[in-house]
Amino acid sequence: MYRVAVWGFGAMGSGIARNILSKVNMKLVGVHDKRKEYIGKDVGELLNIGNINIKVFDNPLKMIEETNPDLVVIATHSFISVVKDQIISVLKKNVNVITIAEEMSYPYYTDPYAANEIDHVAKRHSVTVLGTGVNPGFVLDTLIITLTGACLNVEKINASRINDLSPFGPTVMETQGVGTTPQEFEEGIKNGKIVGHIGFQQSIRMIAKALGWKIDKIIEKREPIISNVVRETKYIKVEPGMVAGCKHTAKAYMNDEVVIDLEHPQQILPEKENVQTGDYINIKGDPDISMSIKPEIPGGKGTVAIATNMIESVIESKPGLLTMADLPIPRALLKGDTFFEGGY
Amino acid sequence: MYRVAVWGFGAMGSGIARNILSKVNMKLVGVHDKRKEYIGKDVGELLNIGNINIKVFDNPLKMIEETNPDLVVIATHSFISVVKDQIISVLKKNVNVITIAEEMSYPYYTDPYAANEIDHVAKRHSVTVLGTGVNPGFVLDTLIITLTGACLNVEKINASRINDLSPFGPTVMETQGVGTTPQEFEEGIKNGKIVGHIGFQQSIRMIAKALGWKIDKIIEKREPIISNVVRETKYIKVEPGMVAGCKHTAKAYMNDEVVIDLEHPQQILPEKENVQTGDYINIKGDPDISMSIKPEIPGGKGTVAIATNMIESVIESKPGLLTMADLPIPRALLKGDTFFEGGY
Repeated sequence: MYRVAVWGFGAMGSGIARNILSKVNMKLVGVHDKRKEYIGKDVGELLNIGNINIKVFDNPLKMIEETNPDLVVIATHSFISVVKDQIISVLKKNVNVITIAEEMSYPYYTDPYAANEIDHVAKRHSVTVLGTGVNPGFVLDTLIITLTGACLNVEKINASRINDLSPFGPTVMETQGVGTTPQEFEEGIKNGKIVGHIGFQQSIRMIAKALGWKIDKIIEKREPIISNVVRETKYIKVEPGMVAGCKHTAKAYMNDEVVIDLEHPQQILPEKENVQTGDYINIKGDPDISMSIKPEIPGGKGTVAIATNMIESVIESKPGLLTMADLPIPRALLKGDTFFEGGY
Repeated sequence: MYRVAVWGFGAMGSGIARNILSKVNMKLVGVHDKRKEYIGKDVGELLNIGNINIKVFDNPLKMIEETNPDLVVIATHSFISVVKDQIISVLKKNVNVITIAEEMSYPYYTDPYAANEIDHVAKRHSVTVLGTGVNPGFVLDTLIITLTGACLNVEKINASRINDLSPFGPTVMETQGVGTTPQEFEEGIKNGKIVGHIGFQQSIRMIAKALGWKIDKIIEKREPIISNVVRETKYIKVEPGMVAGCKHTAKAYMNDEVVIDLEHPQQILPEKENVQTGDYINIKGDPDISMSIKPEIPGGKGTVAIATNMIESVIESKPGLLTMADLPIPRALLKGDTFFEGGY
């Protein structure tokens, strides 16, 4: 029975808390969130499953002190610069960490100094850190690397993840530029309000490390997906000529040739223009491998699942800062109704 | 630089030897085969790449004694009963083992006593044993388990591997019943000459172990694929009404429900009746995941690739008898032309 706490009770953190409660070999012991309206509340009440005697702490270290978790899931932010101190504060309590911060899925290239510091602190405290999620963390890296395992040789990798942003609300619409005019989109890219996908750099570096490839440069592009038809969701209406999403691509070069070519167009209602959502991986090599998952693995559920499913593996692993490529193959942990049994 | 020897120089063993020669971080140091016509010959000559100063030994232990491998790949036979003593003899020399014996991909259920003995000897000698291959070992187990990692919950797994036996010669035609009449097929199943696929038991037990499922029973079926058209390859001609292959299925039950349902119809020229070859995995759960690889990952190349690609991981792993589910995700090892560089 692993004792797990969750730091950050947003859409992902609360989903992970709920998922932990459903697993037979795990016990949710505490939650921390900085939102004043959550503090002191019962986690079960917030999840609409009735009182479970687990409260939201106002202080993460107090939570660790009082609940003795084996592992803390950090679901607060995307960037290393923000989560680094949070991670280190947990490690110093000799507690393992999983974070869904996108940049932490392969931090060694993005911020080698921070990665090195985290790795050293983890090793000194004999605990393990992993950054994961559905993407980066699974579709455009772990799954690609795994498939190359059946190849005698790999020359080039093309992969795309085509999803539908319809379920998402205003924040995602803004960061992907949905509903803007082409001019507004261009300005949004320039001023950093439209970000596209966070994770291409990490996925590419993880693949390259696994395959022993030396990448010379990565060129990313963010282009508007201009709609030819009316697309309307609960949150937004896009007229023809307006932007339905962001086509974000990344090409990685080795010796002046593109060897990894990733696409992640994110838009609302792609089927309105006959674009089928899915995860597509094409490996050119010996043999070629052409894989598709239709529809795509859903982003929110996928991230909640992977983050939870890696908990046992991370706790049982050797110490240090690891990536998905260092750990045993992922798997779904068994579900059961233990949160109704004594105590919680 | 890992030193690797190969025991068994058939289609798979010779392919693995060739592949090892192509990898930058590996050195092929020796080959053993019992065929008299190979003994003492140069491995490069046998592979048609010119002399490489590596010879075929008549005795596997002499090969180990003289060449000091870090790992021996055993590619001799499908069954634990045959490879067990071979594996143990290598382990006793403190050398790691990868075998493509199908039953060794998950031996704990098939022969728990042998598995236990192998595990103990491996641990006492601080070395590692892995059974792998494209299937069992990758498509209908490792890949399925990996995909469940993105699921909150898994209820049922359906998967099929549809391949084309056209490239294969008389032995495979016989063991799959290709070219028989329906009556001959039935007799072949009864007298054990037609075997279908070896590996369903292992794939199912590996999946069940990873997911924490308790399987009550597994029911396998081998049925003739009766051709409606003429199908002809270099090796065999099948007239309408005759058998084009063996449809082998396995259903695993938990609490009287089928929870793992695997199909592996093996036939010549399936496209003659509009059957598309491919690897198909369907997970019913939360979320559902529907994956296809078209065409299927080729069996021969896939097995050679996986067996070679796991070498580094097995050498660097903790000691004992492991399965693909215990090791880090597979990956293609880097190819390079080092076998032309000094030393052989």
